[in-house]
Amino acid sequence: MTTILDDATRARLSGISTATLTTALFKRGLRNVFLQGPQRINPAPRQMVGPAFTLRYIPAREDIDVLKAFEDRNHPQRKGVEECPPGHVMVIDSRGDAHAASAGGILLTRLMHRGVAGVVTDGGFRDTPEIAGLDFPAYHKRPSAPTNLIHHHAADLNLPVACGEVAVYPGDVMVGDNEGVVCIPAYLAAEIAAETFEQTVYEDFVVEEVRNGTGLFGLYPLLDPQISERFARWRDGKGR
Amino acid sequence: MTTILDDATRARLSGISTATLTTALFKRGLRNVFLQGPQRINPAPRQMVGPAFTLRYIPAREDIDVLKAFEDRNHPQRKGVEECPPGHVMVIDSRGDAHAASAGGILLTRLMHRGVAGVVTDGGFRDTPEIAGLDFPAYHKRPSAPTNLIHHHAADLNLPVACGEVAVYPGDVMVGDNEGVVCIPAYLAAEIAAETFEQTVYEDFVVEEVRNGTGLFGLYPLLDPQISERFARWRDGKGR
Amino acid sequence: MTTILDDATRARLSGISTATLTTALFKRGLRNVFLQGPQRINPAPRQMVGPAFTLRYIPAREDIDVLKAFEDRNHPQRKGVEECPPGHVMVIDSRGDAHAASAGGILLTRLMHRGVAGVVTDGGFRDTPEIAGLDFPAYHKRPSAPTNLIHHHAADLNLPVACGEVAVYPGDVMVGDNEGVVCIPAYLAAEIAAETFEQTVYEDFVVEEVRNGTGLFGLYPLLDPQISERFARWRDGKGR
Amino acid sequence: MTTILDDATRARLSGISTATLTTALFKRGLRNVFLQGPQRINPAPRQMVGPAFTLRYIPAREDIDVLKAFEDRNHPQRKGVEECPPGHVMVIDSRGDAHAASAGGILLTRLMHRGVAGVVTDGGFRDTPEIAGLDFPAYHKRPSAPTNLIHHHAADLNLPVACGEVAVYPGDVMVGDNEGVVCIPAYLAAEIAAETFEQTVYEDFVVEEVRNGTGLFGLYPLLDPQISERFARWRDGKGR
Amino acid sequence: MTTILDDATRARLSGISTATLTTALFKRGLRNVFLQGPQRINPAPRQMVGPAFTLRYIPAREDIDVLKAFEDRNHPQRKGVEECPPGHVMVIDSRGDAHAASAGGILLTRLMHRGVAGVVTDGGFRDTPEIAGLDFPAYHKRPSAPTNLIHHHAADLNLPVACGEVAVYPGDVMVGDNEGVVCIPAYLAAEIAAETFEQTVYEDFVVEEVRNGTGLFGLYPLLDPQISERFARWRDGKGR
Amino acid sequence: MTTILDDATRARLSGISTATLTTALFKRGLRNVFLQGPQRINPAPRQMVGPAFTLRYIPAREDIDVLKAFEDRNHPQRKGVEECPPGHVMVIDSRGDAHAASAGGILLTRLMHRGVAGVVTDGGFRDTPEIAGLDFPAYHKRPSAPTNLIHHHAADLNLPVACGEVAVYPGDVMVGDNEGVVCIPAYLAAEIAAETFEQTVYEDFVVEEVRNGTGLFGLYPLLDPQISERFARWRDGKGR
Repeated sequence: MTTILDDATRARLSGISTATLTTALFKRGLRNVFLQGPQRINPAPRQMVGPAFTLRYIPAREDIDVLKAFEDRNHPQRKGVEECPPGHVMVIDSRGDAHAASAGGILLTRLMHRGVAGVVTDGGFRDTPEIAGLDFPAYHKRPSAPTNLIHHHAADLNLPVACGEVAVYPGDVMVGDNEGVVCIPAYLAAEIAAETFEQTVYEDFVVEEVRNGTGLFGLYPLLDPQISERFARWRDGKGR
Repeated sequence: MTTILDDATRARLSGISTATLTTALFKRGLRNVFLQGPQRINPAPRQMVGPAFTLRYIPAREDIDVLKAFEDRNHPQRKGVEECPPGHVMVIDSRGDAHAASAGGILLTRLMHRGVAGVVTDGGFRDTPEIAGLDFPAYHKRPSAPTNLIHHHAADLNLPVACGEVAVYPGDVMVGDNEGVVCIPAYLAAEIAAETFEQTVYEDFVVEEVRNGTGLFGLYPLLDPQISERFARWRDGKGR
Repeated sequence: MTTILDDATRARLSGISTATLTTALFKRGLRNVFLQGPQRINPAPRQMVGPAFTLRYIPAREDIDVLKAFEDRNHPQRKGVEECPPGHVMVIDSRGDAHAASAGGILLTRLMHRGVAGVVTDGGFRDTPEIAGLDFPAYHKRPSAPTNLIHHHAADLNLPVACGEVAVYPGDVMVGDNEGVVCIPAYLAAEIAAETFEQTVYEDFVVEEVRNGTGLFGLYPLLDPQISERFARWRDGKGR
Repeated sequence: MTTILDDATRARLSGISTATLTTALFKRGLRNVFLQGPQRINPAPRQMVGPAFTLRYIPAREDIDVLKAFEDRNHPQRKGVEECPPGHVMVIDSRGDAHAASAGGILLTRLMHRGVAGVVTDGGFRDTPEIAGLDFPAYHKRPSAPTNLIHHHAADLNLPVACGEVAVYPGDVMVGDNEGVVCIPAYLAAEIAAETFEQTVYEDFVVEEVRNGTGLFGLYPLLDPQISERFARWRDGKGR
Repeated sequence: MTTILDDATRARLSGISTATLTTALFKRGLRNVFLQGPQRINPAPRQMVGPAFTLRYIPAREDIDVLKAFEDRNHPQRKGVEECPPGHVMVIDSRGDAHAASAGGILLTRLMHRGVAGVVTDGGFRDTPEIAGLDFPAYHKRPSAPTNLIHHHAADLNLPVACGEVAVYPGDVMVGDNEGVVCIPAYLAAEIAAETFEQTVYEDFVVEEVRNGTGLFGLYPLLDPQISERFARWRDGKGR
Repeated sequence: MTTILDDATRARLSGISTATLTTALFKRGLRNVFLQGPQRINPAPRQMVGPAFTLRYIPAREDIDVLKAFEDRNHPQRKGVEECPPGHVMVIDSRGDAHAASAGGILLTRLMHRGVAGVVTDGGFRDTPEIAGLDFPAYHKRPSAPTNLIHHHAADLNLPVACGEVAVYPGDVMVGDNEGVVCIPAYLAAEIAAETFEQTVYEDFVVEEVRNGTGLFGLYPLLDPQISERFARWRDGKGR
């Protein structure tokens, strides 16, 4: 799990929307990369970027999942919160089930304090009013107050998992904006970051054009040589 | 598709809640007129009113729905964005499926610029953080970053469609407030606008009464002659 | 239905989160106490606390559920709004179905005026833009404009019901914060209030510790004697 | 609950399909009469006909719904099985939830022995392999082995309930064939039985015509005077 | 709509399982070709093969979808039943909704009599006990007695539709066995038929090998040269 | 994974219904042991009994899950089929998703030949018409023709998994009858087998009593001393 997400790639991905990323991945034949369900609790300018560190839940069993379980230092949820590397994103496979919480305010505060880049579950978090106040990217499906033991058993750390119907391998690069979360296969991250950086420049130009009354044909996608020239000048002028 | 939504009807419907409209339609035996699912991205005082201009999606097929498809000027999604008449509402039948976007920020900006009255899908939009900043009524189920080609094929324009489990015929009058969207059969729009205008005046009076402590019996619905008189005076005083 | 929710218990529960309450109930073997689905329309500092007063809906039938039904003073919805005791919470069993409204702005205004403590449905409310402006705790699944008669028949008052997949008996104590709603069996309310009051003091200490860099092991749950001492001093200092 | 389902009506309804019944009810404005979900466990020639006797479940609570509950002679499930009048149909409102059984083989055997006409749940039954062998109409959604206490609390008997998204009032006439179950409002049963008897004769004729090559236009619905005559002769010949 | 499904292709496809067909289509990048939901009512040796002739439903509207609608010879459902070409498969887009029937026994009898190859809906059929007795391939989701007017409006014929979450274009070749239905793009039908014919021969050999104790490695997929030789001999011996 | 399911326990469990087993587990506080969804493809007298050997799927990714993957002898699906110990039950965690097959006829034939006791998925199998003809217990949700690679990636073997919303640990004892599948924690298997053997004898007596007209009170559960005596004599007579 020694993914190296280089600083340049991380910086670029911090400015690319998940919409643009999914299109670049689609060009490579990857259709299922946007997590279905997880939405941001605390919309904020800060984008989430980091390699995935995974935690897997299976259904709870009443004789195993008792409050005393939390006293065990090897309990994967508690261990994961203490061991998720700074700069990584904790991704929790909750089987898409929000009947009980995947984690709560105290654990997320700890993750934030430890320098983790964000947290994603396809279930729900508890203490969401507090989480909404943290400067820490957190994505879930809906608020869920019950403690995880009621419905979830923390099975293991850093295996490939499903989250929001998407395959997430440890080390894949997770990017989250106010729209949701996309999972980029680790080996593609740098390449995608470079390509989408260009696409984003062009789309900023497109928005300006459309606001000025240009129609879509020839502009989006770019087919018209005149617009192509205009874009070159615009880009030049902006120094991008 | 030469629906004429006269200015007076449009003006009246701009001040009527979708809740009141559904009741008036229910009186005429129409029970299924409120779109299930679509919610407003950008809550704002401006109500959405306009005749429906429809776009229909079917599931995508990998050999047809490739990025190159957007280069075709007859691609129904792009064509629809350029041809939806000003003052109309674009209604997208996405089969209630938000696994990929129905449209995104650039297209909605174009619709806004062209004077379209709003856009509704029973799927999801992409670029929702940008859409939230537009002064343009947009309704969807949830944010969805993937480009539509991944999951949707734009099949045709201006046929009767299903949107949010409701039948929408081209020209039907779509009204949207911060609660959701109602579809009024074209031939009933003027009649419903007139009747609900009256009902709204009465309900404003009711709210005031309830705030002053009047109980519901006799007041809502109006059965008590004393309240009837009080309402007449109140209305007179308000000049409504 | 002469539940006595004593003032001390009510006051304590006003400061306890639903997350903490579910854990205390879990200790007693109660796993299914958090209502799945209902979310707060009008997030506010004021917590909802009060004994349940229930209203039950079954599916509507076209020959019975006509607008004239509201003229009957014994119509359970209208009767319930006039009879729900002050300080109680009206809990509506809508079979989890938001295809039509469970109630609307006028009825909720009336409940508020009558001193009711809040209202919960596992369906939807209409007039939600207005409800969002009321200083009155209201929980539902999603906005739904159609009048209840279109889909719901008000069957009876104050029987045990299902709400959000949870059993709610009249008199059970409902507590709602900005995360959702928990149902506490009546006989446990005082005991749970006392215990969770203690737990909340400790969790406030934990959050402060975590913010200062303390790890979770030994702290949460409390196992480390040194932390135990530190907590005692902290509590003393805070006078809690 | 002294519904009188006269013998002639019962006899007629024993030969009418649920498809034909729903059409007759639709003519009277009743659209929601076919129970969504329940399917027959033991397909057989014998149709189920009888007035509804209802049992209502709410979610179980761990401190109330323990095995000892069955020792109470007033437990509504056990009481209902002993008190459901012969010739009636027990209709169980399980909130459409088959996570635990609504009842099992022993109770259904008892109902059969007591002369009850059938049983319907919108949840699941246990011991379905045994039930499949009983000469007793039983309808459910899917097999479900867990005892009802795990998920359901029997709340009361003979109140109006929801079953399969349909309103069922005690005394309504339930008719079940191998397709499913329809609920006929008590006051309409005799009238519907008479009308659909006629319709069934005509549809038998239609099937014969279609097998002989007649097209649908003019035949179904009956519009062509020549076919009308042919039908008269056919009916005469059959003595129906 | 002049699809020519040549006799050789039709004959070959009559002996290929839908499982084998989906794999061949997957090799060409087509992942979404098996209709999700529709299951065969009347399991039988006869496979369904034929080009698609489509019928599209949208939600019903109470003022349009009245029984009188069936008197119109242009009603798309009735027209479709009379005009679907012999040897074709009628594919009905019911939005995956079985709350009312897509069609019933009389219409399916007519289709059968007219030489149509089969019928598929992603909703439900009525009169399913009768349909189960017809020698006519019929696929649906579950039985549904209510007449289609209650919930569906027949909108048009022979447009591209969605059925079971799959795109079906008129003329695509539908193949159905006792497992379900697959949709083959028209231009691929002959090629796929040829290729899967070969694959089926090999899989018959594999089953025999496995029954005789051969392990999977090297056999399935075929990698081992010895097995390759054995297969050649086996095929020779069988004259396939 | 050296579960020892002794022969006596296996023999006893072969005669106990899943309904009876869930009740015995419920007495020990285990409420969630019946797999929701999986149903038997090939109903037969032979019960399925064996320790769980698990296979876990996550969502497929287009660049990894290609047909060539099956050539790898370490592909967990193929490896699992060759390594699942005789007498064990292969339990497949398909995330409850039947959009593609979990396995097909050839692999199940191989499992059968290798002496495996049965196979369970919470997704679907392909080649179900063939599987229905095998003398091998197979449980799934619904038929699904597409090859697993389209939607599932085989991640690993013999980890704790979720199947049908139930936690299944390798070695837990799976028991399946024609109603469905129950998962018994390994350490409880012998104890549960002994207890339910007794319960089954009593329930056989109860069925006979009910058929002879005895009411439920005092009989089920057993409270009446007279019935207790009668049972003793009956058991004696039967030599059980």
